[in-house]
Amino acid sequence: MEFQFSTRMHSLSGTATREIFKLLSRPEIVSFAGGLPANEFLPVADIAAISGEILAADSARKVLQYGVTEGYLPLRELLTGYVKDVGIEGAELDNTLVISGGQQGIDLMCKVFLDKGDVVLVEDPTYLAVLQILHSYEAKPVGVKTCKDGLDLGDLEQKIRALKPKFIYVVPTFSNPTGKTYSAANRKGIAGLAAKYQIPVLEDDPYSKLRFSGEPVPALKHFDEGGYVVYVSSFSKILSPGLRVGVAVGAKEIIRKMTIAKQGSDLHTSSLAQAITFEYLKRGLLYPNIEKALPLYRSRKNAMMAAIKKYMPKEFVHTDPDGGLFIWGEFPAHIDTVKIFPEAITRNVAYIQGKVFYADGSGLNAIRLNFSNESLERIETGVKALEELFKEKIVAGT
Amino acid sequence: MEFQFSTRMHSLSGTATREIFKLLSRPEIVSFAGGLPANEFLPVADIAAISGEILAADSARKVLQYGVTEGYLPLRELLTGYVKDVGIEGAELDNTLVISGGQQGIDLMCKVFLDKGDVVLVEDPTYLAVLQILHSYEAKPVGVKTCKDGLDLGDLEQKIRALKPKFIYVVPTFSNPTGKTYSAANRKGIAGLAAKYQIPVLEDDPYSKLRFSGEPVPALKHFDEGGYVVYVSSFSKILSPGLRVGVAVGAKEIIRKMTIAKQGSDLHTSSLAQAITFEYLKRGLLYPNIEKALPLYRSRKNAMMAAIKKYMPKEFVHTDPDGGLFIWGEFPAHIDTVKIFPEAITRNVAYIQGKVFYADGSGLNAIRLNFSNESLERIETGVKALEELFKEKIVAGT
Repeated sequence: MEFQFSTRMHSLSGTATREIFKLLSRPEIVSFAGGLPANEFLPVADIAAISGEILAADSARKVLQYGVTEGYLPLRELLTGYVKDVGIEGAELDNTLVISGGQQGIDLMCKVFLDKGDVVLVEDPTYLAVLQILHSYEAKPVGVKTCKDGLDLGDLEQKIRALKPKFIYVVPTFSNPTGKTYSAANRKGIAGLAAKYQIPVLEDDPYSKLRFSGEPVPALKHFDEGGYVVYVSSFSKILSPGLRVGVAVGAKEIIRKMTIAKQGSDLHTSSLAQAITFEYLKRGLLYPNIEKALPLYRSRKNAMMAAIKKYMPKEFVHTDPDGGLFIWGEFPAHIDTVKIFPEAITRNVAYIQGKVFYADGSGLNAIRLNFSNESLERIETGVKALEELFKEKIVAGT
Repeated sequence: MEFQFSTRMHSLSGTATREIFKLLSRPEIVSFAGGLPANEFLPVADIAAISGEILAADSARKVLQYGVTEGYLPLRELLTGYVKDVGIEGAELDNTLVISGGQQGIDLMCKVFLDKGDVVLVEDPTYLAVLQILHSYEAKPVGVKTCKDGLDLGDLEQKIRALKPKFIYVVPTFSNPTGKTYSAANRKGIAGLAAKYQIPVLEDDPYSKLRFSGEPVPALKHFDEGGYVVYVSSFSKILSPGLRVGVAVGAKEIIRKMTIAKQGSDLHTSSLAQAITFEYLKRGLLYPNIEKALPLYRSRKNAMMAAIKKYMPKEFVHTDPDGGLFIWGEFPAHIDTVKIFPEAITRNVAYIQGKVFYADGSGLNAIRLNFSNESLERIETGVKALEELFKEKIVAGT
């Protein structure tokens, strides 16, 4: 039989990460393709103790019953204060929505703002899933040029004026895929343009707490003038991705619409997962666990940087992030990292092809490397395998 | 400031249930407005024991890490067999998707099939949230007439031919809101028309295991000819709504598209919630707990039927369900249950206005009564309060 699927589905296929995720089960493959937090620091014992207490308490039935769409009230209350840690002051309950992971925050923002054909400005390159989600709303992602400090503000303003985007999507801290961080001045500039042209900004911040060097920069929302910035964060990278809990903070009108949109999407986020997240934060366990994890992230990033320096050809131009999960690298323009990918797999190393992060499908010569989920030894082995593969291609000019 | 929200948001407001849900926190109000499973039978101790074991096991990290969109593999495998209990044979892994509650199943079906302006046929009256979700896709719900056995097949066929709907949505067992169950012959008839006209059917089945009298009827999907029926069920009413776990079973092509759609919505369902659901089912705890709960549901339904018989005026025409959570009743045509609602609240009783369940906003004279979450005494008190309120109105003719 033939089914008449919606137009939005025509352009959608499983994202590269999801397909590659399946490959990762083969243990001989050194995977730089994932975006997983380090397994070692998933706080299994704390979560076990907390969920035991939640389910033994008189209030256990409450977390197993239906809850309200806005989120588990103690968690929402706590989150209004939690975001102060990234410089977001004055958040109240009505500004705060619990979401089922950061992905849902992006989806709800799209649901609330986008009609077919609308333009959304994104960084070039940007988080690949946002491109997929935008296509699912039949919207048009357009890439904005970058500079050393963040977005190229001139290009941003020009594209705001020319394209009248519905919103701007950015990952300003330890960006996925590049690992770069926008300067405070650049954030202020983006927030200023948002206010000037009354264009909402979706600030996606899953990584900022994973900083292992350099000085913290306040959230872009800290510079918000007039409520145009919606801040979305997630507990996936700092507590547990399997729980699927995140938070959106924004203007009351926007959060109200996102709440109504969420009601149709999944009614509410798993209450048990919300209660676990609440207790974990309330008990002050988050920051000590991150502190414990950071040396591992730092050492793995350093191992990857050292291996790149040791093995990779000088033609490989790459970032050197102060946190997060990713290094971004670019080969000479003639290298096609999509075509080469199957060969990488036969050499037991995986990366993500740069192409999937570009609104216009360019970036064929780039790769994203994740350093957080392999041992130091395997990181060296993997980079060496990449070098052998790409050196051939660079020399061959193919 | 003014935000330019998407067109879909213009017609959306919080649903009646969500707003009413907030009222329910006032303990003096006897609430017939909810749709919650009985608190008494949320298996708190079993879930506590299971989650303790899951989080103490070597595999604990697996349920706290990212998972695949399709769902936690052991649960998916188990669910292919689980649906045999409602007469669905031959489900394989590729036919089976774990979803974040039944609501997400409806949302994904819409995402996969609907373009703006598309028609979806629903029962008149139908589950109110499906109407909201359809509006969020800018689709047009059209009501199909009913008969004693289920949908009026003549009206269904005529509307299929005239309106070329993208799919048909039904709750064939203990329908929300009416509590009615379609006969096997009626299900066969619907499945036959679906195949004849190649129109998918979304069968929403959250309630069928809550049968306290009468004989089980196989799922509509049991009568599926050619893969047109997508079966969606949920563990909210029989295990715990707070976990947000459900299942969709359908043709591989449709399930594949729903999986891609789900990836953008929430990446995957909470792995901890999935693992708990898996263990609960695997250990054979589901049916014994339902067996323990059914006498309570039966006694509460009987108490409501007895109170209706004792107090309510003969002009109140109502259903007498064999399971589920709801009784549906209709007053004479001049009664406006929306207008009267605030008075009901002042008399400390809450119901849901029939209007919200109709695609065309009719049903002003009807109410939905939930019997599952109040004590026998409070059920009698509440029905008596309704009687006092509505008798006045019927006599007054307003």
